[in-house]
Amino acid sequence: MAPADSLTEFLSRARREVDDALERYLPRPPECPRLVSDAMRYSLFAGGKRLRPILTLAAGDAVSRRTEVLPHNSRAMDQVVAQDRQKVAQDFSPALPAACAIEMIHTYSLIHDDLPAMDNDTLRRGRPTLHVVYGDGIAILAGDGLQAAAFTLLAQEPASVDPMVAARKLRVAALVGAAAGPIGMVAGQAIDLQAVPSHAVSLDAGALRDMHARKTGALIRAAAVSGAIMVGGEDAAVAAVDAFAAHVGLAFQIVDDILDVEGTDATLGKSAGKDAAAHKPTYPALFGLDRSRALATECLEAARKALVDAGLTDGWLLAVAEWVVARKN
Amino acid sequence: MAPADSLTEFLSRARREVDDALERYLPRPPECPRLVSDAMRYSLFAGGKRLRPILTLAAGDAVSRRTEVLPHNSRAMDQVVAQDRQKVAQDFSPALPAACAIEMIHTYSLIHDDLPAMDNDTLRRGRPTLHVVYGDGIAILAGDGLQAAAFTLLAQEPASVDPMVAARKLRVAALVGAAAGPIGMVAGQAIDLQAVPSHAVSLDAGALRDMHARKTGALIRAAAVSGAIMVGGEDAAVAAVDAFAAHVGLAFQIVDDILDVEGTDATLGKSAGKDAAAHKPTYPALFGLDRSRALATECLEAARKALVDAGLTDGWLLAVAEWVVARKN
Repeated sequence: MAPADSLTEFLSRARREVDDALERYLPRPPECPRLVSDAMRYSLFAGGKRLRPILTLAAGDAVSRRTEVLPHNSRAMDQVVAQDRQKVAQDFSPALPAACAIEMIHTYSLIHDDLPAMDNDTLRRGRPTLHVVYGDGIAILAGDGLQAAAFTLLAQEPASVDPMVAARKLRVAALVGAAAGPIGMVAGQAIDLQAVPSHAVSLDAGALRDMHARKTGALIRAAAVSGAIMVGGEDAAVAAVDAFAAHVGLAFQIVDDILDVEGTDATLGKSAGKDAAAHKPTYPALFGLDRSRALATECLEAARKALVDAGLTDGWLLAVAEWVVARKN
Repeated sequence: MAPADSLTEFLSRARREVDDALERYLPRPPECPRLVSDAMRYSLFAGGKRLRPILTLAAGDAVSRRTEVLPHNSRAMDQVVAQDRQKVAQDFSPALPAACAIEMIHTYSLIHDDLPAMDNDTLRRGRPTLHVVYGDGIAILAGDGLQAAAFTLLAQEPASVDPMVAARKLRVAALVGAAAGPIGMVAGQAIDLQAVPSHAVSLDAGALRDMHARKTGALIRAAAVSGAIMVGGEDAAVAAVDAFAAHVGLAFQIVDDILDVEGTDATLGKSAGKDAAAHKPTYPALFGLDRSRALATECLEAARKALVDAGLTDGWLLAVAEWVVARKN
């Protein structure tokens, strides 16, 4: 496990690179109408945790360190290799476009989920939600635009004529599309929309897990796996990162449910207690708070095991998972 | 120009192949929840004209015929070449995934545009709009899902390890993303949303043309150009198809505006006269019906010239443009 100050530094640097790249990649006036540009930026730069792009960069970093072990037979060569690995470990560029595209998709999903026709939320990241400020029509369009911009980015960047890079980009675009679309995130939100008492649908533990696997888990997995693929990870490393991220995604959701019970509007930056108020199925509702906390810890252990078994413990990937479970908002 | 019965046959065959492929490509239960699957299919199989995918296939066909001219020096070789060209001309498969993806994106845009928060339309293709039947929340999600499914399809199909095919798929995904996103279709719809008297924004002829170039023109151009790219068209052919489609897109919109004035709910399958009722800027409102008809004819002439100059008159591409201008719904 990396020392806490390293994780802090890693998170800070990753967030800065993601923010800078998002600003570069996002269309702006005059090509993009100011209203649409302002609306997209309002939500994209609202102080989100950047969990998904951080997972992309951390997974890319961890897999690079594993992949780039070069043969060496002298102390001097050891030093070169150490420098190379350090350099590789600091180069976010192969995975940065995918990281940004996934954050765009995550942001669009929050915008649409918050609409009155969906979850009808008025507070997000401590500010009024987008439709409260810009109206429902522009909020729908800003979300639609972010999704299109995300796939445009995945197709365009990193620019390269290398056939291997092209193959990776197509693979990532296909898996992000599946994770975000009608068998993934969209499906999860549809199931969630129906899972309220007025629709007379109640979910058991298995159905709750399936809903979350789609609604939040799929994109979290796609985020981590995209990083592994974009740095050229081999199949075994990609599979290990996928298994790791599946556990992290479930832990993330359980903690989210716990925070909705324990947190306040002020600590969360969004409306607390809304799950219970809406009679939504949650882990605390099904298992109680203590058992839910234990489940989150079990997920973290399983995530750790997936990385250890694959030799992917260099770097900050595991520390990111621990941060996900320990977070207070 | 191809005889009318050939065009009819071409349209019929293209529509059948597109419908079959859409059914194959679209996620279904159990991977996709039945509600989402039903909602997407309700709008996707509502009897649309399939103009955009037809343009994709017709452009691919025309460019294939131009590209596949082989050297020959005997009557026997002439026959072989003629058979080859016929075969090439009948093979929709390289462009079919792009054609279907673009129809998915077009359909999602209709679903979202029809929402109460946008144009608030209750009739489309002779049936109640999706949100009237399924509610606004599921309609938003069905649209979101169709957009994600479209880009997933562009990344996955046609499946090939050929680096040239991979490069074409990435190029098409990038241009479709730009056409559909915040500098294209989404921008056009945002401008349109603002261009009503209550927002105190009025458009002159230049601004009207810019709005339509984004709202409908961009995806129509992307549709035709995708076909040209996917069959391996050279830069000059792709550019000619783009110029052709820009003129066709404008003609399409002018005719759309005319039909809104002259048509009825029954002939159009959607609410007629709604532009005037909403005080929307239109070609008839700015130029009158006669001048609008003349403008549409001028666009068709310019489109024809683009094809003639590039030697792309074999096949049905020009006939499709004529059909667009002559259509009654």
